[in-house]
This record gives sequence, C-alpha cells and structure tokens, in this order.
Amino acid sequence: MRWQARRFDLIQIGSAQLTGKRSSHTSITMAPLKVAFLGPLGSFSHQAAAESFYKLSADLQPQVSFPDAFAALQKKEVDYAVIPCENSTNGSVMQTLDLLADRDGSYKDVKVCGEYYLTVHHCLMVRKGTYPGGWAEYDGSITKLYTHPQAWGQCEAFLTKYLKGIERQDVTSTSKAAEIVSKETTERGGAIANRFAAEQHGTDVLVENIEDRADNTTRFLVFRNVLDERTAEFKFEQPNPPTLEGELALETTHKTLISFTIDHSSPGALANALLIFKAHGLNLTSINTRPSLKKPWQYIFFVECGRTPSDENKEAVHKALNDLRQVTETCRDLGTWKDQLSASNA
Amino acid sequence: MRWQARRFDLIQIGSAQLTGKRSSHTSITMAPLKVAFLGPLGSFSHQAAAESFYKLSADLQPQVSFPDAFAALQKKEVDYAVIPCENSTNGSVMQTLDLLADRDGSYKDVKVCGEYYLTVHHCLMVRKGTYPGGWAEYDGSITKLYTHPQAWGQCEAFLTKYLKGIERQDVTSTSKAAEIVSKETTERGGAIANRFAAEQHGTDVLVENIEDRADNTTRFLVFRNVLDERTAEFKFEQPNPPTLEGELALETTHKTLISFTIDHSSPGALANALLIFKAHGLNLTSINTRPSLKKPWQYIFFVECGRTPSDENKEAVHKALNDLRQVTETCRDLGTWKDQLSASNA
Repeated sequence: MRWQARRFDLIQIGSAQLTGKRSSHTSITMAPLKVAFLGPLGSFSHQAAAESFYKLSADLQPQVSFPDAFAALQKKEVDYAVIPCENSTNGSVMQTLDLLADRDGSYKDVKVCGEYYLTVHHCLMVRKGTYPGGWAEYDGSITKLYTHPQAWGQCEAFLTKYLKGIERQDVTSTSKAAEIVSKETTERGGAIANRFAAEQHGTDVLVENIEDRADNTTRFLVFRNVLDERTAEFKFEQPNPPTLEGELALETTHKTLISFTIDHSSPGALANALLIFKAHGLNLTSINTRPSLKKPWQYIFFVECGRTPSDENKEAVHKALNDLRQVTETCRDLGTWKDQLSASNA
Repeated sequence: MRWQARRFDLIQIGSAQLTGKRSSHTSITMAPLKVAFLGPLGSFSHQAAAESFYKLSADLQPQVSFPDAFAALQKKEVDYAVIPCENSTNGSVMQTLDLLADRDGSYKDVKVCGEYYLTVHHCLMVRKGTYPGGWAEYDGSITKLYTHPQAWGQCEAFLTKYLKGIERQDVTSTSKAAEIVSKETTERGGAIANRFAAEQHGTDVLVENIEDRADNTTRFLVFRNVLDERTAEFKFEQPNPPTLEGELALETTHKTLISFTIDHSSPGALANALLIFKAHGLNLTSINTRPSLKKPWQYIFFVECGRTPSDENKEAVHKALNDLRQVTETCRDLGTWKDQLSASNA
C-alpha cells in the first residue's frame, strides 16, 4: 500500500520565530524577516511559508484574507507574502489572479520574487495518547471524522478501505480539523490534515500519506515590495523541489509574469500581443484570464513566460514589455524569479 | 433610484411543457424537445433554458449536476443542455471547462450549438398576500432575509438603504430562498431571488432590480449531440441580447471553441498553436486553461475564436483544425455557433 510505504519528508520547523541571522561584519542582530501567509496556523500556506524561509530568521504572520496579506506587503508591514497561485489538480486560484489584477492600483509595488512547490500530503490523526500502540494496534474505535470538504475526495481509497461508514463532519480547514480532535474529550474523533497541522496542534499521527494522488501539488508564489531594499538581494531556492517524472529537463530557468489588457474591438489584438513573447525568445508557459470588470466580456490576461538566461537574452523581458506597451491598453511587469521545477531537472 | 426606474422585461413562460409545434406538411405533432438544465426549479439556469427555447415546444428537465446534464445529452436522453460557462463579474465556470476537457472521452459527441446571455436581476420577494399594498405601503416588518451567499454582495446598496440590520440566512440557491418564504407561516421572511423564481414558487415581488451592478451577466452555452439529426438544423437566436454600451460593433458573427494540449517540453509550442488562428483569419476572443491531470503543470487550452462569415473564410475553421493537429498533442473541435453579442450590434 502506497500510504504505508512512503514517508513524509517534512522539514522540521519549531516555533514560527527563528533565531536572528548575524552579519559577519558587525555584531548587530538583524530583525527577523516578517512573512505573511493565509491563516489559520497549521494551514498549507503556513507550511509553505515555514518551509520557504526555514533557513532564515522569519516571523511568520497569519493573515485573515489574501487582500490582507497583499495590503500588509504594500504598506511594508511585512517583508514577504507567500500565496497559493495554482494547484496541479484544481488549477489556478482565482482570488490570487484577482489580487494580481489590482484593478484599483492598491498593490502597485508588490511583485513576485520566488515560487515554492508543496506536495499535498494528508495524515489521519487523533488526540495525543488516544492510541499508544499506533495504527498497528488500532481497534476500529474512531466514531467521527473531521476535515475540509475537499480532502474527503482526496483520500477516498484509504477512507473506503479502513474507515468506511464513519460519520463525517465538514470543517473550514484541515488545520481546524486537527485543532478540534486535539481538544475533544467526549468522543473518539479522527482528523485528516497535514503533518504540519499535527505539529501545530499536538495531535498523534496514526497514518501518513493517505491521499489517493501522490502528485497533487500546490504552487505558491513569494511576493515582495519592490521598494523594500532589505529584501532586494535575497534569492529563493527550494530545498527539495518536486521532480517531473518521465519529463525531459526543461531548459527554462527564469520565469516572468506579465499582465495586460487589449482593445477587444481590434481583431488580432490578442494574437499580436502573444506574438511579442515569441519574437523575443520568451517561451509561453501559462495563460490565465480574469474579467476586466470595466466592461463585460473584456479580460485581463496573465502570461507567464520563461527563458534560459544568457548574455543574448538578458534584455528580452525589458524589450518585450516595451513592445507590449505599443499594442496593449495596459501592461504590467509582475516580476521575474527562478523556476524551481527546472532547477530540479538540472 | 435605478431599482425603482427599471422594469424587468421577462419573457412569460407558463409551465415548462409548452405546446407541440406542428409541421406545415403533416398533421403529426412533433414530440417536445427535451432540454436539460442545472436545477433546482427557478434557478438562473432554468430561466436561461426557458428563455432560450421559449418559441419552441420544450420539456425542460432539471439535472442535479453538470456531468448529469452532459451524460443525458451524450446518451440522447435529451436534445439540448443549457449550461453556464462564464459570468461577466466572476469569470469562467471551472466545472464547465472540466466537462469540456472530457479527459476520459465520456462526451465525445457533445458540442456547442448556441449561446444565451442572461442579465442577473434580483428582486425582494415575500409570501403571497403578505403586503397587499406592495412596496409603497411596506411597514418595515420583515424580520429575516434569505438568499444565496453571493447575492448579498450583489444587492448591498439596496439592503443597506432599506433593510439594514435584518437577520440574514444563507441558503443553497436564490430559488431555494424563494421557496422558503413561499411556505413560511411563523415569521415575516423576505427572499432575494430572480423574478423567474417568484413565478415558480408563487411569491409576491415587492421590489425589482435591486442589484448594484446593472451589467452583471451570465453567458450560457447551448449544447447538442452531433449525432442527433433532429437538432441539426435548429439555429439559436436570442430575442433580446444584451448590448455592449459604448462599444463599436464587432464584426465577428460566428464563434468556434477549440480545445488542445501541447508538448510542454517543446519551447514555443503554445505560441505556434496560437499563431495558426491568426494565419487563418480567426480572431482570438478568449483563452482558458485547465490542468491536464495527466502530468502536473500541463494544461488543456480552450480557445474561442471568431470570424465574420464570407466565401473566402468558410473553410477557415476546418483548415485551422488541420494545421493545429500538426503542432498539438490532442486537438478537438467543440462547435461553432452564432455570436449573440455581435448580433445585437448589427
């Protein structure tokens, strides 16, 4: 059984506040980096933020909503924000695209500076000490299961085989499910959540990797405020990026995200804009659209493109943006960062 | 006040089963067309189906889910399915794109044959007979409001001005809200739903057009089974399509939807595929993507393109499909239909 054979390779993070990093030239301790993520504590966003910044002094700050995280970054109340942008099974996260659309110019200094791939692993967990013998000695006495509605479907094979017929209670997040079973005293509850949530809430993990699909992965984008000098030099490297099985290594190693709007009454306008990427040797890797909200059936396009950095193409993005500004109504550079997937194939 | 001045111009539909249409050459009554829509009764999908087929004999059949509607059409249990594909404020409907992706080939004969634009209008409604004097004599005695969570935000100005502080109860659909207030006896409830739901459930409409945004419109696609000879000749014409204010008339009058997948390890593959549309004079009007679910970070692209029909370009779609098949991994023609928006500008 896959969920017995695999082991979840979690990077151990203690509390959110890590030790300050010292400069080699002075004895002054740098204030910890502040990193915004979408709460609650123990969420997949929390895990992604913790893993992205595990080498650094980082004060991880939960935010109630995506706009709160972006607003905190625009106001420089935080140094970074880690936001989910895409899931390999469910597709793009529309709230994130709407934030990036920035229709009223609230986040004009916020840009992407990195990405982080988090494979979605689920565990079955219970209140600490409930089953001292672990899964090997589990006696079938769990009476109720808790998780986010999406997680039931992601663990169907395991649930059908081992926990069939047990009452299921939907809750607002997998982390909330872990919290509920950590505190319960009157019933034998089980939660489906990630190991990170188990560590946050102090539950015992009975079985790891109970998900049906081993490759379900969420891509997070890391954002910074471009006016913040403190974060200008930091380069993100994911310690253990996922590999694309059976895939030839892509040469692309830098990605750029650009948004634009076009004159929809002009035939060929969209094709002309997309041609510019090809003309400058930028490979289109994804296209997304959201309503412009200015007029119905007009869109904001989000184009992600890649290039293998070389002396010849180091101005390619800059030149493409100049050309795009000639054929688009609005056009915005949303940042360039190192592709973590291609890095894993190098 | 806009919600007092406007009048909702609903096409009156009695029961779902209309009179059979007679052939001019024979006395045989044709069996009513069966049209699938996403239930419950009184939903916006029900309204779109009723208005799309109001001139014809149509037996409107509610379906529990989008896949149920497509399965019924593939099995020829129904003649048409009317499915929402895009909202002018919220963007594309992902469930519909996932159906169109048809990753396991379940719906290989289902294609688009028409579109229908439905402007989203909300009304405040109450149980029949509660306020015989109507809104003019309303005494402020409504104690509880019901609607779908999304509708509160769409009617914020009216609610803030006239119904501030009243308890709000979320329900699963606006139609369900109308049903609840139609049956209540112990409290004074108000529902926010469309006039169509009021007619379905027999409530009294107190105020019409209470929505904040006059242009919030949902585009529905009409699907048929291409092997069904009975529906081969029917051409959809929307009786009162919405006009695009301040917009020059687009010349495009036929739209085509094509899906394809590309070899993601080949740089330029997506740009090359998109170039083909331009080469054949097909104007790109929208692009959507969904995960391929074969490998992470690989996509199915949905391209909608348009052309003004002429003798010169009558083979354009056919030729573009042939060329696309040379540069894509998979490629599928999802249908051609008359653009109802451009018709309104003609």
